[in-house]
Amino acid sequence: MSAFNASPGASLDEWRSKASFDGGKMRAILQGGEDKLRLKDEYWQIMEKDPLFKKPNRHLSMEESRLLTHQRWKKVLEYGLPCDMYANYEGFSAFSDVLEEYDKGLQARIQLHSGVFVGALSSMGTERHKELIEKANRNQIIGCFCLTELSHGSNTQAIQTTATYEKGQLVFRSPHIGAMKVWSGNLAQSATHALVFAQLYVGGKCEGVHGFVVQVRDEKTHRVLPGLRIGDMGEKPGHFNCIENGWMLFEDYRCSTDALLNKGCDITADGRYVHAFKSDRDKRSVSLGALSMGRIGIVGMGVNACRAAATIGIRYSAVRKQFGPPDGDELPILTYPLQRRRLLPILAASICMGLFQDKMIDLFSQYMARLLSGEKSDELVELSKEVHGLSSCTKPRATWLGVAALAEARAACGGHGFLYISRLNELRDTYDPSQTFEGENNILAQQASNYLLSQKKQGIVSSPMGTTDFLQTRPISFKGWNADSLENVIAAYEWLLHYTLTKTEKALEDRKRRGDDAFTARNETQIDTAHPLALAYAELTMIKWAEEAVKEIEDVKCRSVLHQVVRLFAVSQLQPHLTLLYIGGYCTGPEFGTRVKEEQLALERSLSPECVALVDAIASPDFAVASALGTSDGRAYENMVADFFSREVDRAPFADDLLRVIEANKTKPKL
Amino acid sequence: MSAFNASPGASLDEWRSKASFDGGKMRAILQGGEDKLRLKDEYWQIMEKDPLFKKPNRHLSMEESRLLTHQRWKKVLEYGLPCDMYANYEGFSAFSDVLEEYDKGLQARIQLHSGVFVGALSSMGTERHKELIEKANRNQIIGCFCLTELSHGSNTQAIQTTATYEKGQLVFRSPHIGAMKVWSGNLAQSATHALVFAQLYVGGKCEGVHGFVVQVRDEKTHRVLPGLRIGDMGEKPGHFNCIENGWMLFEDYRCSTDALLNKGCDITADGRYVHAFKSDRDKRSVSLGALSMGRIGIVGMGVNACRAAATIGIRYSAVRKQFGPPDGDELPILTYPLQRRRLLPILAASICMGLFQDKMIDLFSQYMARLLSGEKSDELVELSKEVHGLSSCTKPRATWLGVAALAEARAACGGHGFLYISRLNELRDTYDPSQTFEGENNILAQQASNYLLSQKKQGIVSSPMGTTDFLQTRPISFKGWNADSLENVIAAYEWLLHYTLTKTEKALEDRKRRGDDAFTARNETQIDTAHPLALAYAELTMIKWAEEAVKEIEDVKCRSVLHQVVRLFAVSQLQPHLTLLYIGGYCTGPEFGTRVKEEQLALERSLSPECVALVDAIASPDFAVASALGTSDGRAYENMVADFFSREVDRAPFADDLLRVIEANKTKPKL
Repeated sequence: MSAFNASPGASLDEWRSKASFDGGKMRAILQGGEDKLRLKDEYWQIMEKDPLFKKPNRHLSMEESRLLTHQRWKKVLEYGLPCDMYANYEGFSAFSDVLEEYDKGLQARIQLHSGVFVGALSSMGTERHKELIEKANRNQIIGCFCLTELSHGSNTQAIQTTATYEKGQLVFRSPHIGAMKVWSGNLAQSATHALVFAQLYVGGKCEGVHGFVVQVRDEKTHRVLPGLRIGDMGEKPGHFNCIENGWMLFEDYRCSTDALLNKGCDITADGRYVHAFKSDRDKRSVSLGALSMGRIGIVGMGVNACRAAATIGIRYSAVRKQFGPPDGDELPILTYPLQRRRLLPILAASICMGLFQDKMIDLFSQYMARLLSGEKSDELVELSKEVHGLSSCTKPRATWLGVAALAEARAACGGHGFLYISRLNELRDTYDPSQTFEGENNILAQQASNYLLSQKKQGIVSSPMGTTDFLQTRPISFKGWNADSLENVIAAYEWLLHYTLTKTEKALEDRKRRGDDAFTARNETQIDTAHPLALAYAELTMIKWAEEAVKEIEDVKCRSVLHQVVRLFAVSQLQPHLTLLYIGGYCTGPEFGTRVKEEQLALERSLSPECVALVDAIASPDFAVASALGTSDGRAYENMVADFFSREVDRAPFADDLLRVIEANKTKPKL
Repeated sequence: MSAFNASPGASLDEWRSKASFDGGKMRAILQGGEDKLRLKDEYWQIMEKDPLFKKPNRHLSMEESRLLTHQRWKKVLEYGLPCDMYANYEGFSAFSDVLEEYDKGLQARIQLHSGVFVGALSSMGTERHKELIEKANRNQIIGCFCLTELSHGSNTQAIQTTATYEKGQLVFRSPHIGAMKVWSGNLAQSATHALVFAQLYVGGKCEGVHGFVVQVRDEKTHRVLPGLRIGDMGEKPGHFNCIENGWMLFEDYRCSTDALLNKGCDITADGRYVHAFKSDRDKRSVSLGALSMGRIGIVGMGVNACRAAATIGIRYSAVRKQFGPPDGDELPILTYPLQRRRLLPILAASICMGLFQDKMIDLFSQYMARLLSGEKSDELVELSKEVHGLSSCTKPRATWLGVAALAEARAACGGHGFLYISRLNELRDTYDPSQTFEGENNILAQQASNYLLSQKKQGIVSSPMGTTDFLQTRPISFKGWNADSLENVIAAYEWLLHYTLTKTEKALEDRKRRGDDAFTARNETQIDTAHPLALAYAELTMIKWAEEAVKEIEDVKCRSVLHQVVRLFAVSQLQPHLTLLYIGGYCTGPEFGTRVKEEQLALERSLSPECVALVDAIASPDFAVASALGTSDGRAYENMVADFFSREVDRAPFADDLLRVIEANKTKPKL
């Protein structure tokens, strides 16, 4: 059995040798630049050396996974890894990427406190909340965020928890089970404080949804405070099982009025509600920025989901051999066009959405700086709307792609993809809720179409970031295929945006003319009109920004390959819109559709020798991917066998019982 | 807090009252007729009464889930529930349906022994294996099936385990780790016997892949026999975690030549290999029937996946209220067109694919009876090919739809869909491998296009079941919309079949003319040609057979609603093909595409008042669905809250440790 040492798989290094570019350069380009990459590698090494960060080869129980996350969180503090955005932005940014790639659960454990809780306190609180922020930053208190209620998720303005001003205090109540706060990460076991949203009542009048910070557990005993009931929501699939999502009920819970996050409003000493908001819309815009930040971050979940799918799927498919020409060896399955079709567009999406997100974060940081500096300009208002519109459709686009990518990668890895140690199902389950949180994708995308409709209605044809500049162009139908496929795709998208925008506008008007209210009219004009409009807007912007980023790359070879990657992303995104392009009359006859399809096949073929090296450039370290199928040494079979050998069985735990059944069956009379 | 008793959800009974048909009649129609339904209900009641069949509200560890499955298997034997197809076909058929709906893992535990092991022994063995079959039927031995190897799944002809005739015995060897038998359910802990496929060597000559039955564990001790190594493959996602999928290595394992399943071949006493096969193809056709049976069964997994998705998704969406007109109550989300789009096509797919599968099983049983009777006719050969072709594309179509349905249902249920107690992620993971086993979908679908290509090439324009009768028609492009939308859809599909068949044929010829071998040519002509051809063939047959079944329904009201359901299934299946219909010139301009899209919207609207009652007609009992969101009483919120209240938390298990960290942070100098 000496042949036991020979791998039945093909060599990854052989694939690597086919690439046309320098791997190190590509890696820096695709991982945020050399400085960021150096920091990332530093953090990766700290984690890899510590056995606590080794991923177990089995599903942990809820209790086990939460304890492990608690221990890992302590280690992160112990190592002084950067969790505070304001104290060390570069470090924070690099470490955030590392956490996102490593484990969504641990990332959430840290981010819900350091990012979401502190962020909301900072943006909605005032001087009187500074001390709490300081304590939170030093982890002397643990925060959580309570907005969603059992019966209100998307419609946050209708939440039903009340905070009533009574005798100089605020009294919190949950009027019925539907008002139970739910899904609050860190609440069930760790949190000492909660950021709570509730309807504020002063003098018997409802002043609408406000934010409050309240203590939920005793500082000394860590027991839940009187007037509150807190519990766990049970198990969830994937990494998020390690997050203690909690529920909370208020039973006449009293606290000081200091709990009110009073930026722009307050309760006076004599019990009156005062505010500086011009309108409800104005009040809501305070938190608009913070909400966009969450969504832009979640675009990164789509990037990471595609990254993991491409890493595991492509490496395994490069190694796995199956079938071959009648008189030849079996071929790596990645050489089959059908297998390339399943995986290369995922790789392209990860890279292009990553480049898009890098730029988006840059622009958003500049925007936030202007906002925090107190700037008040019409251009900033326009920018707010644009950031909101763009994040509302790119978050759905990226997360839908990411979850679909992991599902496809599992299937593309065949039966072995279904092993726990492939990690693909666990990853799919982990990324699954990204389609829902911070705005259910289908509902969120409506914000983008609403933005475009409103811009058009107001006759605003340009925008600060330039994403609506297509409004200045006249839509021209297809005249002939351009040598650069990207120009064809962009022209088609611009036409499609005009078409779906005009069609949605008209459909809305028709509905209103026939007596529908605005609410009904909007709901009836989503499918086939507003929805593809929002997606096309997201996709075109991603494609354009990715291409702009690639144009700026100095290294010729890297740039050349990435130009192809952008083109593959572009044609693969356009494919599902072909029907509308034909129905709407952008094109007739076979040429346009056939060209798009041929272009995608050709790009998948030409990128085939590059793809293993491209995966190396985006992949997380092996200990973080932790997939038997996706290690960088290409030893998928050996990894599986090592795990299998550790599970050799002689007798089942229930063997005696089984023998009893078998014996009994031997003596049982025949039926 | 008296309002705690008021549900924040809408009433399912109100939805039910809108339906136009009799629920009891519909239930019998959609669950295989009154007799079968009566048996199903009887078995359901036996299981529901036994606490062992209550589903736990948490993920079980691998050990726990396997023990539970072992115990449930014992109960199934104890209750004498019908597992033997030949002893009691009606009971077996009804109980199989119950098991499939209840738990795929338990179903597999039973089916792998009673169906797959016994079935293979029966079809490939002879008189000398009768005793083993008898023992297996009485559960005096436990069987498993070992075909797949670590490095060979799809390409089964290339497996590398060897069975060598030496000195009157057979010696089994695994020449390298790639030849390790893997994925064999029941092998790791329970099996006493295995159905093993290996390359047979007699007199130094390889006679190709043969089936053997070998004993793997000692009868008295249940220990693994010498010469074998057996182990577990570790955890899997979903229900299949309870199946002990095993691996096995042969280290000069010796046994009698009786192990050879010798139908049509044998090893003589003087050590010569003899056979009655005319060709390799002929030899393989022995098992063709059995393989089709597996696939036809798996179409049912697609049906059940859609059934579960529709049950949970539609019931929850009928209850869940969110948003509403400015001055009105919030509306059940199922009233929004976008939500209907997500769920109603799933309901339609479950119903139509179910009707298709009922007919397919009927026809297949007749086919098998003819085969077993020893009939040898040209028509039976044609029927074999047709059964193979049709099962090879309907299995992929159904399982892809099923898995996608569960993913969509989870997202359509929003955040609460992500709770373990919604079961949707677990169900998705459970059905996930149906896309891979008994033929990876993408590879399997090629068998269907190959069948159609070969029929056309041979000029055979009709088939025993009539599925290729489209070959007799002349493809006519779209002339105008017919009043009955189904006629439009069928005409478009028939055109599409001609188009993709001709295109695939031409592409293959082009490839061969340019010097490609047949293998390469086939691989290069899948995407955009052979693949959509196979899918269109599956979909059109499903649509036609579902419509035929509906036409035979006596009850006017049920028939009328189901006619609409078939039409919804038809237009929703056709939508992804619109691009090819335009590229190929079936239609030009907006009419055809717009009509298809409008028709789908209109059908979703008209079926909206029927859908909750339709779900009742296909749903499994509440204890089997076991989803907090999908109970038939519509008390989704109450179910969630009951689970949450059972998880009330005062202090975390790691509270003391957490307090220590917090204390330490208080005294730590500021960074």
